[in-house]
Amino acid sequence: MAAGTRVDVLVIGGGIIGLAVAWRAAQRGVGRVLVVDPDPGGGAARVAAGMLAPVTELQYGEEPLLRLGMASNERYADFAADLAEASGGADTGYRRCGTLAVALDSDDREELRELHAFHRRLGLDSQWLTGREARKLEPMLAPGVRGGLHVAEDHQVDGRRLLAALERACEAAGVLVHRTGAAELLVEHDRAVGARLTTGEVVTAGRTVLAAGPYSHRLPGLPPGVLPAIRPVKGQILRLHIPEPYRPFLSRNVRAVVRGQHLYLVPRENGELVIGATSEEQGYDTTVTAGGVYELLRDAHNLVPGITELPLVETSAGLRPGSPDNAPLLGPTALPGLVAATGHYRNGVLLTPVTADLLAEYLVTGTVPALAEPFSPTRFTTKVPA
Amino acid sequence: MAAGTRVDVLVIGGGIIGLAVAWRAAQRGVGRVLVVDPDPGGGAARVAAGMLAPVTELQYGEEPLLRLGMASNERYADFAADLAEASGGADTGYRRCGTLAVALDSDDREELRELHAFHRRLGLDSQWLTGREARKLEPMLAPGVRGGLHVAEDHQVDGRRLLAALERACEAAGVLVHRTGAAELLVEHDRAVGARLTTGEVVTAGRTVLAAGPYSHRLPGLPPGVLPAIRPVKGQILRLHIPEPYRPFLSRNVRAVVRGQHLYLVPRENGELVIGATSEEQGYDTTVTAGGVYELLRDAHNLVPGITELPLVETSAGLRPGSPDNAPLLGPTALPGLVAATGHYRNGVLLTPVTADLLAEYLVTGTVPALAEPFSPTRFTTKVPA
Repeated sequence: MAAGTRVDVLVIGGGIIGLAVAWRAAQRGVGRVLVVDPDPGGGAARVAAGMLAPVTELQYGEEPLLRLGMASNERYADFAADLAEASGGADTGYRRCGTLAVALDSDDREELRELHAFHRRLGLDSQWLTGREARKLEPMLAPGVRGGLHVAEDHQVDGRRLLAALERACEAAGVLVHRTGAAELLVEHDRAVGARLTTGEVVTAGRTVLAAGPYSHRLPGLPPGVLPAIRPVKGQILRLHIPEPYRPFLSRNVRAVVRGQHLYLVPRENGELVIGATSEEQGYDTTVTAGGVYELLRDAHNLVPGITELPLVETSAGLRPGSPDNAPLLGPTALPGLVAATGHYRNGVLLTPVTADLLAEYLVTGTVPALAEPFSPTRFTTKVPA
Repeated sequence: MAAGTRVDVLVIGGGIIGLAVAWRAAQRGVGRVLVVDPDPGGGAARVAAGMLAPVTELQYGEEPLLRLGMASNERYADFAADLAEASGGADTGYRRCGTLAVALDSDDREELRELHAFHRRLGLDSQWLTGREARKLEPMLAPGVRGGLHVAEDHQVDGRRLLAALERACEAAGVLVHRTGAAELLVEHDRAVGARLTTGEVVTAGRTVLAAGPYSHRLPGLPPGVLPAIRPVKGQILRLHIPEPYRPFLSRNVRAVVRGQHLYLVPRENGELVIGATSEEQGYDTTVTAGGVYELLRDAHNLVPGITELPLVETSAGLRPGSPDNAPLLGPTALPGLVAATGHYRNGVLLTPVTADLLAEYLVTGTVPALAEPFSPTRFTTKVPA
């Protein structure tokens, strides 16, 4: 690209959110779209388990996020089908398998009971199971399981295959993806007008979408107060393999809360079993540690003792981008020309379809869809840019 | 190599034992030496921790093996120095660090006490320490450590660097190393005369050295009864990294017996910390399993809680070659022309210098050295070849 390139939409960050926004926006005819990222297809989704669990992930006080998650979950089948078509037949590993949340002791059971009651008040579909019933659904569960909550509509997708499909769909839709970073946001007359890249090139853009996860607020040139700090929340995760004779082993996502930490086992149809995840707030560090792996294996072993026999294929760690209220930042910021799609925390993979649709809608029409309103980046704006 | 190649010594198996025997024999002028292995420099030593611990590994009733191990340990410094010179300066990671064996409960302490008494009866140098004294030597030890045995002369070496150095030394000594397997031992007139390789080539050899670890007895063409089954004993092992601010972390090998399993932590000067090893007898399987990694992390964490913070860099598994009495097979077999150097079980890295020296001596002089006599392969011969 020559210096002084002009595009309609510049997307800074080629993780799952940036790529999906770029693809959907290009599909809807927003014009020329460029994604810049030193490692496109990287980011947290390459590490994530890909559990699509708005109902079992529900937290008190997060009903707007629940609605967003449910909306995204409902779109997933179509999103995966569109993506398969747009990418020339890519399989994203989308699997309508349901999720079983289980309790290992009576305290856990009490918490699950409360979650179940909360589901009922909100009219959500979840079914209470005794320990025996839970083990009937998933015979590999530990005999000590005390009860469970079955959520038929919490599913899974394979983040890595989704990223690969998005890269191909972007290419097919004419989105340019450049393997380089943004060095500086360019602001002229109180308006974002593009970025200078690490190569020195200058890209001018009608709109600039910031989708750089926990690096979003660190972009040089960003005026103070426009974006809050997006904190990196490290998650370590394991990938096991289920050999043929052991299958299915598990037939749906299985999760529990162990010592306050979310533990989940996500069994894929190809035999991969993903076990996640630690939650550590200690900066931009993606080291796999002895302690992280130990805790995951210990807790997973308590939940499903049979994992002992399974090959351990991979250990990895990623950074969830956490906003101050743990909800995403979607749409126009207080700085004209700058649009945010970041801060998805634990829900990036789940929220990808709805984020892409809402952002594409805004980029094409200039109107913020109602579903996105509670997630306006301006809720954190501490100072209107001068 | 053309069909019908003739060498003086054919070594089947290019692991640590095969390479060391080939190098020492070539150094001593045995003539033309060829090593065949589909993966030279592989085998158990590439996985092993490289603890050189004849004294802390001592088992009752294994005094001849102790003498062999002590002899090898005493030769290690010279062996490493020779190898460094012969390989153009390779560093084998030989480190005279000593070993601390510790007890985590009173049963362990009782066993360590007995080992200490046994050491004294044999005149071996080991020093009894209270838990406090052990923690003074190694402050990262768990507060619960109940006592320990310090053995100043049990050291360490880096198996991977040793293998790399041996490959270079072999090359410098004119040993041929071919990346191919032996398909069949060739026997003529009740004498081993070489091998047909998997490429179809035929190698005739004055002497054939079988150094194929747990694959030794499976070589097609080997007459029945000449070699016992060498069973594969799987060991899973972890490699952590000690970042600079944490060093030294540990200053010597630290070991314990946990639930009947040998656990050891071998800290290298370059910051690698090796934690081994499981012991599993289930065939020729080198899968790293969730259960194996879990047990090592759990037990190591009980011994040295601070490992939690360390990066987990690698998990791997290898196969120890175990003979029926767990002692090696060294020297001429009942089949003339066929020499064994296999069955080193847990002690392959330790026994490499003495094995290489004894085998080279035999190959050059035709006389079995006294130190090798208790390890004659004929102790297992069930039938004299017809």
